[in-house]
Amino acid sequence: MKNRAPLLTVLLGSIILLNAALTTDAQSKDKAEIRQWLDQWAKAFRAHDLDAIMSMYVPDVVAYDIVPPLQYVGKEAYRKDYAQFLAQYDGPIEVEFRDVKIFVGHDVAFVYCLERLNGRLKSGQKSDVWLRDTSGFQKISGKWLNIHDHVSVPADFDSGKALLDLKP
Amino acid sequence: MKNRAPLLTVLLGSIILLNAALTTDAQSKDKAEIRQWLDQWAKAFRAHDLDAIMSMYVPDVVAYDIVPPLQYVGKEAYRKDYAQFLAQYDGPIEVEFRDVKIFVGHDVAFVYCLERLNGRLKSGQKSDVWLRDTSGFQKISGKWLNIHDHVSVPADFDSGKALLDLKP
Repeated sequence: MKNRAPLLTVLLGSIILLNAALTTDAQSKDKAEIRQWLDQWAKAFRAHDLDAIMSMYVPDVVAYDIVPPLQYVGKEAYRKDYAQFLAQYDGPIEVEFRDVKIFVGHDVAFVYCLERLNGRLKSGQKSDVWLRDTSGFQKISGKWLNIHDHVSVPADFDSGKALLDLKP
Repeated sequence: MKNRAPLLTVLLGSIILLNAALTTDAQSKDKAEIRQWLDQWAKAFRAHDLDAIMSMYVPDVVAYDIVPPLQYVGKEAYRKDYAQFLAQYDGPIEVEFRDVKIFVGHDVAFVYCLERLNGRLKSGQKSDVWLRDTSGFQKISGKWLNIHDHVSVPADFDSGKALLDLKP
């Protein structure tokens, strides 16, 4: 058995190094895929493409949206929320992301960023609002899907107002 | 070499099985640690213990808080925000978490839940509010630290009001 010890050491060493290299590589790839998720979402949202938007979420998504109630539980509830929100706008809604940070673990990731929505409401009025967005993801069958959204603006406790006109 | 092949197969198989077992075990442990983070935070928050609260965050935390501005960048800014918020209350602030969901990847985790803050303001008025909370964590030197908070209530776009009186 004595000539096997060096072989095992080399083998285990190689596995550890290979593992580290694969992890770094996989992380970069995963971060790029999450960034693609955001861009794909923005494209679908701009175009009011509800089916394309909802294909990016898991069935049991839980969302804390900018509008009430406190939470939307499940894809059907969240889809109705999206439909109502999009119906307020006439034509494309431009999306801008700023200060995007992406954190990836094994099959779990989350992102936070500031998000500007800019478009024309059906009333004719322009709407240009900066939101805060935090989203969580899980990699399912090799594909990153959104499992949680949290979108909001801060509140002014003295006036009771939602601060919809803040700029970063 | 011919008698080494079965040894290598068994060795690699064992590594794969061991890895899977360790991953499941580690995930349960990590989830329990994130839950402990929440409970430890609630204890420190209840007691207005600013140092204990801030020891649970990384230096470059970015927070989207219930109050403006859009974001607090870095621990010092967030500490001032905490200090101002706590200063509004007289005595303990009770914290209740509901519908807590924890997702753990390798060294990255996030949690979302509804969060009730209940206490007496210095004006003498009672304050009892349900918030939505999403938080992101990184495991650094074996310890889970908060790298991102997002706390909010929904907004009513018609009235411009922050909805501080919603119940789950």
